[in-house]
Amino acid sequence: MPAHDLDVFFTPASVALIGASRTPGKIGYSMLENLKKSFSGPIYPINPEATEIAGLSTFPSITNVPASVDLAIIAVKAEIVPIVLNECIKKKVKAIIVISAGFSEIGNKKDEEELQKLIKGKNIRLLGPNCLGVFTKGMDTLFFPRDKLKRPPEGQIGFLTQSGAVGATIIDLISFEGVGISKFISYGNAIDVNELEILGYLGKDMATRAIAMYIETIHDGPEFIKISSKITPNKPIVALKAGKTEKGAEAVLSHTGRLAGPAQVYSAAFRQAGIIEAQTTQDLFDFAKALSSQPPLRNGRVAVITNGGGFGILSADAAIMAGLELPELSNETIKTLKNVLPEYAVPKNPVDLTGDANAERYEAALKAVANDKNIEGILVIPLVQTPELDEKIVDVLRDAKIYGKSVVACMMGGEYTIKHARRLESFGIPVYDTPERAVKALAALRDYGGVIAPSAPAAPEEIVVRKAKKLLAKKAKKAAKRRKSHKGRR
Amino acid sequence: MPAHDLDVFFTPASVALIGASRTPGKIGYSMLENLKKSFSGPIYPINPEATEIAGLSTFPSITNVPASVDLAIIAVKAEIVPIVLNECIKKKVKAIIVISAGFSEIGNKKDEEELQKLIKGKNIRLLGPNCLGVFTKGMDTLFFPRDKLKRPPEGQIGFLTQSGAVGATIIDLISFEGVGISKFISYGNAIDVNELEILGYLGKDMATRAIAMYIETIHDGPEFIKISSKITPNKPIVALKAGKTEKGAEAVLSHTGRLAGPAQVYSAAFRQAGIIEAQTTQDLFDFAKALSSQPPLRNGRVAVITNGGGFGILSADAAIMAGLELPELSNETIKTLKNVLPEYAVPKNPVDLTGDANAERYEAALKAVANDKNIEGILVIPLVQTPELDEKIVDVLRDAKIYGKSVVACMMGGEYTIKHARRLESFGIPVYDTPERAVKALAALRDYGGVIAPSAPAAPEEIVVRKAKKLLAKKAKKAAKRRKSHKGRR
Repeated sequence: MPAHDLDVFFTPASVALIGASRTPGKIGYSMLENLKKSFSGPIYPINPEATEIAGLSTFPSITNVPASVDLAIIAVKAEIVPIVLNECIKKKVKAIIVISAGFSEIGNKKDEEELQKLIKGKNIRLLGPNCLGVFTKGMDTLFFPRDKLKRPPEGQIGFLTQSGAVGATIIDLISFEGVGISKFISYGNAIDVNELEILGYLGKDMATRAIAMYIETIHDGPEFIKISSKITPNKPIVALKAGKTEKGAEAVLSHTGRLAGPAQVYSAAFRQAGIIEAQTTQDLFDFAKALSSQPPLRNGRVAVITNGGGFGILSADAAIMAGLELPELSNETIKTLKNVLPEYAVPKNPVDLTGDANAERYEAALKAVANDKNIEGILVIPLVQTPELDEKIVDVLRDAKIYGKSVVACMMGGEYTIKHARRLESFGIPVYDTPERAVKALAALRDYGGVIAPSAPAAPEEIVVRKAKKLLAKKAKKAAKRRKSHKGRR
Repeated sequence: MPAHDLDVFFTPASVALIGASRTPGKIGYSMLENLKKSFSGPIYPINPEATEIAGLSTFPSITNVPASVDLAIIAVKAEIVPIVLNECIKKKVKAIIVISAGFSEIGNKKDEEELQKLIKGKNIRLLGPNCLGVFTKGMDTLFFPRDKLKRPPEGQIGFLTQSGAVGATIIDLISFEGVGISKFISYGNAIDVNELEILGYLGKDMATRAIAMYIETIHDGPEFIKISSKITPNKPIVALKAGKTEKGAEAVLSHTGRLAGPAQVYSAAFRQAGIIEAQTTQDLFDFAKALSSQPPLRNGRVAVITNGGGFGILSADAAIMAGLELPELSNETIKTLKNVLPEYAVPKNPVDLTGDANAERYEAALKAVANDKNIEGILVIPLVQTPELDEKIVDVLRDAKIYGKSVVACMMGGEYTIKHARRLESFGIPVYDTPERAVKALAALRDYGGVIAPSAPAAPEEIVVRKAKKLLAKKAKKAAKRRKSHKGRR
């Protein structure tokens, strides 16, 4: 009997919420609300003191549910967890998420080990305790009310996090920035499902084109490197490691009861495994959104195109300091640019289209630069606030995809600019609010180029397409075999 | 006859706009709109082809205006600038802003020198050419329409910028973030008023408590250091220098026609002058808003208080890496915290109030830590998305001012969180969206502590109060003298 894989957490046939509450403001209340808003299958609220919550019939115990339950979510006090966990086992659920805190993270290792013993040998997968569970389009086990913490749109970044709080507030922030998520997994104390298995799972997940992770500790270093090394040639991983300093590691110890190793060891392991390291919370999704949508850079040769000269200078500085190259443009490109640009503008890299550039000038310049063989990646910085630019610039940048080069954008400004930035972001072009953030994202694409070079394919897109083709071919082969054996039997 | 000081650009008695336009979408149209929205004195639109624009009578030339004009704003084609400039001289205006571009920044030095010659010896101040002019509550010469580029609220940061585009988009971004500005000056090619004079002016400006500057080149290095050195002991200056790399300096050359020196030279000059250097666009106002509102840190001893353990770890890492200290809390503080915190929480620095903390727990912890003699600055990271926290947390943090210590906050999240962050920001507590940004701001406070130590007063607030008292005392003395001499004459 093979163990259920992690799909059961995202696509169960039915869900029971143990600890459902009638009281608005309580965790068990907003969890039920979020489940109802996301999950279309049957939901069984478990509460011994209620008969109905939010239009759903409740049951005193999961054992009273008159149907099978795939996934049980436990959100009761720590001391009651073993009791309801036993009932889940009796009910033969396939998977359990233990939201409840109060275990090893506060020094209470004994009770955590008891949970581990209870599920041992049972065909049950357990996520947690002390976690938020999962979020995807069809399943939301987060206890944060949606008016306080927004959920991200569907996207291509898989996000695993050891800390529920950090993970949840990050997705709240990136939702606001319009960045999408394929799957979110908060694994907490990880007594069964841990970061290694989740990594492997997201590595195979077709909806996930890049993986972002927040970790404080790693269960098994060599295994972590082994699993990651298999994934990174095909799918980028960005990791933010907390507890890198002695002081930070001390804080990890009080937070999770585990020892965090020194920063250098982690950085070295990340490099060995082909993982791109995020130095800050901001880097994590800045990098992930570029890596999930743009081809990596093999040699880091980039061009900057802007209608704000100062931004060209700031970007050139940041690019050079990040080890990127700003090569000279080819004679042909310069010739084409001269036709496009006003007389006084110099067609150099960074390309300053000057303040009166309109969308058409951007389009022509972008085409010329994208066709330049010296250039691999392009940073576009449109100042949409200028009188001459309008919403057409977003369409121009969206269409830049056809050149097959890496494109990232910087759009700095308030509401009006952000509106355009969101629209561009929705077309799969990563947008940043400062030139330096955009340049760092290009540097991450270059770093990932170093990971997959020289044998791997160029773009995540290609990989996904190739994989999908392989899968279809496999399926077709299987079907043919089935048909054949059918024929034989006839 | 002494030259007019820069006040004339901000508080003229009357303004003429040469190049006013009837056509929406044109620069001369939105400039007039923005002038009308900001300036309460008489405005004279100059346009030889119109009789009335937007309800105001127009004049064919400034010489036809039947009243005196303090400030003339010129927004016509470069080749016409000398003609209208001559008319301004005839009209005896006190100050001129030349918005028009097309001078030394595109290699056209001859025409720029002609402008310089024209105003030589006249009692006229000129800002520009190739600039945006100024913005303050009562004067807005920016040509960006307000629906495309928001204006910041009144604040305590004076901002001077060599690049109009960079400056304008930065204020658009910070307006969105709720950061205020005392005065904004875009000085462009600086043929008369330059960064040195503006620095001196903002250094004395009572409404300005910190100065932010974006520069590509400096006119006179030794003079720059001399002027800045006089300001920084009393008022912090943050500078973002563009064109630090060879590639960036090349771009400066095509942008402004001037040579930018190597990065090290600038960094050394900044240090010598007590200027805090911003490495990125994000740093510039991240630092300025902390420096304009919080006391500097003399020794960099900080504490972190959060209800999200992971954020404590990330902040501790960032703080240590920025060279800040996270000292142990005193026995007394620990004792007090023990009364406030749940049993399982460890009262250590970073202080983890745990996920179920409410505003009252925050208040008690904040008070205990603020009263700890080991602690100079506090980073508070409330996860307002948790069910137990509500808007009361903002009031608690606002009131933290009474302890006289430096307080910065990190609030990471979407709309709901941002709403609270904006409110807190409006009370003068700087708020950042990631722990690393907040920590860098604390490090800037520590760097500034090094500039003013050991003899200068602790807080910018104190300085302003002291200066105001001095000024009042001086005025009182003068008045007494006047009264005395009156008596004598009688």
